[in-house]
Amino acid sequence: MSGAGTAGARLDAVRRGMDAAGAAVAVFGLSSNMRYLIGFSDEPGERMLLLLVPRSGDAEIVVPELYADQVESTSPPAAIHVWTDGEDPGALLKEVAGGLDRDGGRILLDDSLWSAFALLVQDAFPGRSFGLASTVMAPLRARKDESEIAALKRAGGIADRAYLEVTGEPVSGLTETQLAGRLEAAMVEGGADAIAFETLVASGPNSALPHYRAGSRTIRPGDVVILDYGCRVDGYCSDISRTIVCGPPSDEVMRVHAAVRSAHLAARDRVVLGVRAEEVDAAARDVLTDAGYGDRFVHRTGHGVGLDVHEPPYIVGGNEQRLERGMAFSIEPGAYFAGEFGVRIEDVVVVGGSGAVPMTEVPHELKEVR
Amino acid sequence: MSGAGTAGARLDAVRRGMDAAGAAVAVFGLSSNMRYLIGFSDEPGERMLLLLVPRSGDAEIVVPELYADQVESTSPPAAIHVWTDGEDPGALLKEVAGGLDRDGGRILLDDSLWSAFALLVQDAFPGRSFGLASTVMAPLRARKDESEIAALKRAGGIADRAYLEVTGEPVSGLTETQLAGRLEAAMVEGGADAIAFETLVASGPNSALPHYRAGSRTIRPGDVVILDYGCRVDGYCSDISRTIVCGPPSDEVMRVHAAVRSAHLAARDRVVLGVRAEEVDAAARDVLTDAGYGDRFVHRTGHGVGLDVHEPPYIVGGNEQRLERGMAFSIEPGAYFAGEFGVRIEDVVVVGGSGAVPMTEVPHELKEVR
Repeated sequence: MSGAGTAGARLDAVRRGMDAAGAAVAVFGLSSNMRYLIGFSDEPGERMLLLLVPRSGDAEIVVPELYADQVESTSPPAAIHVWTDGEDPGALLKEVAGGLDRDGGRILLDDSLWSAFALLVQDAFPGRSFGLASTVMAPLRARKDESEIAALKRAGGIADRAYLEVTGEPVSGLTETQLAGRLEAAMVEGGADAIAFETLVASGPNSALPHYRAGSRTIRPGDVVILDYGCRVDGYCSDISRTIVCGPPSDEVMRVHAAVRSAHLAARDRVVLGVRAEEVDAAARDVLTDAGYGDRFVHRTGHGVGLDVHEPPYIVGGNEQRLERGMAFSIEPGAYFAGEFGVRIEDVVVVGGSGAVPMTEVPHELKEVR
Repeated sequence: MSGAGTAGARLDAVRRGMDAAGAAVAVFGLSSNMRYLIGFSDEPGERMLLLLVPRSGDAEIVVPELYADQVESTSPPAAIHVWTDGEDPGALLKEVAGGLDRDGGRILLDDSLWSAFALLVQDAFPGRSFGLASTVMAPLRARKDESEIAALKRAGGIADRAYLEVTGEPVSGLTETQLAGRLEAAMVEGGADAIAFETLVASGPNSALPHYRAGSRTIRPGDVVILDYGCRVDGYCSDISRTIVCGPPSDEVMRVHAAVRSAHLAARDRVVLGVRAEEVDAAARDVLTDAGYGDRFVHRTGHGVGLDVHEPPYIVGGNEQRLERGMAFSIEPGAYFAGEFGVRIEDVVVVGGSGAVPMTEVPHELKEVR
């Protein structure tokens, strides 16, 4: 985003959402919501930095001194209140909140706001009821505009090229951490602003742990290896998983991989405007169940991707949300065999007028590497 | 840490702290506190994973299915309750909380617990008062034991070697992001498990922004460049800042650098058992004030470092906490001149019997690079 024009329009959209939700004030911490709204954010930390958006009237920002220049340089349409290391930011927050405390309505908290700050916000708005800002933010953020989709695509292209580069070299003998480092270096050299999340390289039996990250295990011939990684461009994330094998795969690995691939394609084919998110999940799940691996697919089919690597819409059983144009989410069915191996194939897709448009394009094949 | 023995001892220490604080249950999310207590954690995400520690009785873990194997493999001394994507974790939490709801006492929330989960915890313990788990955790975690200090030292050594490697090559012509990527790659190749935080490379006028990260700016001859980075080993972080200059520095830059260096050494010399944290801050601040740069030093002198890159004790005016053996924190005075340049020099030190022991050891000099 660029400039106060976008920020003003987005804050106005938040205010309309708050009106509909009967909320008085929405409070944001350092988060992707803050970035979406005012073009500034950072990793959350122990210093209180809050954006308070009242349903009517001007927004307020409470900012530690060492962030003040950066926040001011984005020219947010908001009054800025600075506190200095050693001062009590809770007192400043109470003062600011007092000026916003007009109609006694509900207060919305940024979903990822730390409890350390949420308790201060609750103190500053005594007697109110509290809800989550996602009720207002999720619908706004789920539909990506053209510039957001372009950033998702650039981030995906960098991840694609990193895959081709890293799997074109031998991986046997590397530790998982070293291979993860190569993927990350390739993305940064390829133009990424940063990696999107801690790179996952799960080899051999570790590949059966869906959320294992990367460790000191050395990759050996015969290993199945899941790579799951991504980068950021202009704040927007890529997220791709491919399963490779070090030397010729066993028949069992080939069978499982083929089933996961079919599940992935079935889910992608189900991505049509107006379809419910749970139907996309079911499409993948049905294929794996028919193949006899239903109980091996222990996670949802996907998650939204944007400024956060995990955000709505979630592609999961029970989510009746209808797909809309511009929604971006992962499709990542998998199957896991404890102590042996796992397989996962993931692309982020964007919902277009004629179905899913993948943001990553390298082949799904079970690539045999050295 | 290794095994249930350590976890059991640490949970017992938490229970003693809760007793003293009059707390009934402490609730932890995916955080360094969870890692400290049960040897498992991950980046926080939208799936609810909570550790509930009652003052008396067994701990309980509410875990999403895809984390269940990993949590169980750490053999935590706790009952494990699994929920599956598509189920309502809030309902499971209420059930578990009901079994712990014995004495109506205060509930402690992990400081970094997301509001999305904190509101569910508040719902699950209706009518209680809520406080922060740091009241109990900070004193436990601030004093590092020998194995923790050894990990801090290994992480520091890797950061030292990355500095020597990267600044031994020309940096002029690289973008900030590329230089950050080199530091990160050097740390991973050097044996780091991961980087500790997004690497900061601030060149030219960007170096005047204390929390600027790294961007597309190309480093040019004449630039002052602040490098601020670190890595993790066994969960423990290093954090180092050095200021380098691309070609010969101006007299002004040399003057400011010399003052910041003196401030750093004055603070380090003040690190003595029993001294108050604020006195260490004052030692650095006094030197910069005497040099005429008092108003350029816009942040605190330091922060604790351990499993978190920022944790107690904070080396800041008003913190009367006394230094104890094993405390680990950064000393990082700086001076910033908007639109021109900035200087910062940072090491993490551990409080030993005879003063500060630095975890990073490369020289503080204003290194001239190509």
